[in-house]
Amino acid sequence: MITMGQEDMPAADVEQTLDQRSKPRRKTRAVRAGNLIIGGGFPISVQTMWKEPLAKESLARVREEIESLSLRGCDIIRFAVPDIESADLLGVLSRISPLPIVADIHFDHRIALRCLDYPIAKIRINPGTIGEEGNVREVVAKARDSGASLRIGINAGSLPKSLENVKDQAKAMFEASEIEMNVLERLGFHDVVFSLKSSDTESTIRANILFAQAYDYPLHIGITEAGPLVPGIVRSTIGVSALLNRGIGETIRISLSTDPLQEVITGVEILKALNQRGTGLAIISCPTCGRSTFDVKGFLDEVLNGIHYQGPGITVAIMGCMVNGPGEARQADIGITGAGKMAVIFRKGEIVRRVSYEDSITAFQEELRAACKNE
Amino acid sequence: MITMGQEDMPAADVEQTLDQRSKPRRKTRAVRAGNLIIGGGFPISVQTMWKEPLAKESLARVREEIESLSLRGCDIIRFAVPDIESADLLGVLSRISPLPIVADIHFDHRIALRCLDYPIAKIRINPGTIGEEGNVREVVAKARDSGASLRIGINAGSLPKSLENVKDQAKAMFEASEIEMNVLERLGFHDVVFSLKSSDTESTIRANILFAQAYDYPLHIGITEAGPLVPGIVRSTIGVSALLNRGIGETIRISLSTDPLQEVITGVEILKALNQRGTGLAIISCPTCGRSTFDVKGFLDEVLNGIHYQGPGITVAIMGCMVNGPGEARQADIGITGAGKMAVIFRKGEIVRRVSYEDSITAFQEELRAACKNE
Repeated sequence: MITMGQEDMPAADVEQTLDQRSKPRRKTRAVRAGNLIIGGGFPISVQTMWKEPLAKESLARVREEIESLSLRGCDIIRFAVPDIESADLLGVLSRISPLPIVADIHFDHRIALRCLDYPIAKIRINPGTIGEEGNVREVVAKARDSGASLRIGINAGSLPKSLENVKDQAKAMFEASEIEMNVLERLGFHDVVFSLKSSDTESTIRANILFAQAYDYPLHIGITEAGPLVPGIVRSTIGVSALLNRGIGETIRISLSTDPLQEVITGVEILKALNQRGTGLAIISCPTCGRSTFDVKGFLDEVLNGIHYQGPGITVAIMGCMVNGPGEARQADIGITGAGKMAVIFRKGEIVRRVSYEDSITAFQEELRAACKNE
Repeated sequence: MITMGQEDMPAADVEQTLDQRSKPRRKTRAVRAGNLIIGGGFPISVQTMWKEPLAKESLARVREEIESLSLRGCDIIRFAVPDIESADLLGVLSRISPLPIVADIHFDHRIALRCLDYPIAKIRINPGTIGEEGNVREVVAKARDSGASLRIGINAGSLPKSLENVKDQAKAMFEASEIEMNVLERLGFHDVVFSLKSSDTESTIRANILFAQAYDYPLHIGITEAGPLVPGIVRSTIGVSALLNRGIGETIRISLSTDPLQEVITGVEILKALNQRGTGLAIISCPTCGRSTFDVKGFLDEVLNGIHYQGPGITVAIMGCMVNGPGEARQADIGITGAGKMAVIFRKGEIVRRVSYEDSITAFQEELRAACKNE
């Protein structure tokens, strides 16, 4: 029974089609943000944005939470800076933060100028909200003196007035980036990352392809306002992976209407799934069904909690029963599978332990720690 | 500043590259599963799997939960059937279930035979676990009599022994599907859906492309054992959308180590994001930041709870502040944005109401219900 033509493709083309998924990365300039380098062939970085206003009392807690985001794979973190007081608080935080800090400025460029009195690594401005060209010139002059870089963050939801009537959203965003680029290039300033984001995946992809074809500045990519957790992860994964598969994107931000940790985890997982970040644990775990003898979800929560391994990639399989369990667990670097009244732990294809369910968490944690150390 | 060659692509090619994302769907046979048709140009269906053993006392509750999964977009649901007693319970459920039921059988084909005494819509068997050919023959004979269809579910973790040493996992899965297909075709039985799944995204994609090139049976697609919620959604989205973008896949199952509802939501969201399911609400919501005047996450939880709209697509924008808020909310069918001490509700670009934050949830729910009715 042969298909009716439209999918006929010689076997060699299958390989070629799949090869396109790992297209070589675009060559870009390197732009420094504190101790992080964006572009220039450096690893693709993951960022998030803090979601609460800063207060003096909360700075120590915020610093700790940044530390913990960093352990989960976050490379750089951005804060909204709505006023001068927030700029001063962020400035204090930038002196103690374990990650480079980006200040996000709209409406009043004087807030950006105040941020640049501190070791803030990067300033994000939006051409649609920053006002006249003179404002940008002042920010550039001070950024150059202090060694900070800029991000020009174009959003389809806040384009400059002159472009509001351009019907093709992707072209409007691309043109907005060119207008701003011209201003910066006239000033001889090139330490700039660009972003072109829309909540429409298709427009975002197209705008970024247009930009990547024409210019060599690094791109910060993401789907803006992607939505609540599940739909947000789905839409972000589709948009971001479509760009990364074309070799486009030097730093990524996943925008979700939930906490920054989920944004970071999603970003890191996208990079891992596309073989762009080999570090850490790759978890294979079964969805469980009426056949499972093993509480996979509870086990996962328990075992993975507190393990922040950042070394070479280790595949961990957590399986509920005997159908696919031993097969998957055997192929993984380390695996466990329920088997009747016992659980069986594998390391690289060899059974290393048989334990009771009560002992399984402790035993598996020991083996996992040992596996992480050995890599 | 022009890039260094490797991404140079004439503008026409950008359009072409993007066109590939919506490749026409492969033509396949139509296979009936109860009142659902898989393949044959019918809409791509979403399925999930029940995660607990069945018990007599729980059947009424399970029926209700199936009803609620159906309201969220689930089209068909599968149950593990480990023994004859479970087959009888599932049989009772199949008479009252609002969705077609699939029985998942391993190791003992007599359980499949018992299921076929009831209006169970489809039987899934795995060539790696079902034993000798005679077993399959018996199941086919009875399925033909009762009008049930089959799914041949190949898993890389449980291949037939004869293929365990084939190094290329994708080819091993493809060969397993052909061996089983030969058995069924000799019996003249064609009401069959196939699946070829691995926890490795690349192998899964390749195996399904090989199958789609050669045969016209509908494909059930998914990444098996994709993992915990966030990484599982990311890996499933990458794998499933890569296939759907090639026109491959007639029914999808997202395997997550969490509850069936999240699997259904993820499946539906993937179809929506790829314009394969136009119904329901598309949510654009901002991730919020220190600038937000509006509790977007709380608002989302409150407003979307209990709205199970399944009509034509409606875009809903829920935005925190004045930066992108009005722009996004204006482009959506219905939107709300925080604006100083008030919230502003838009319908198709027009401000329809200004309300206080306290009144905003009720007001927005009214407008959303009205918008859903009007479509």
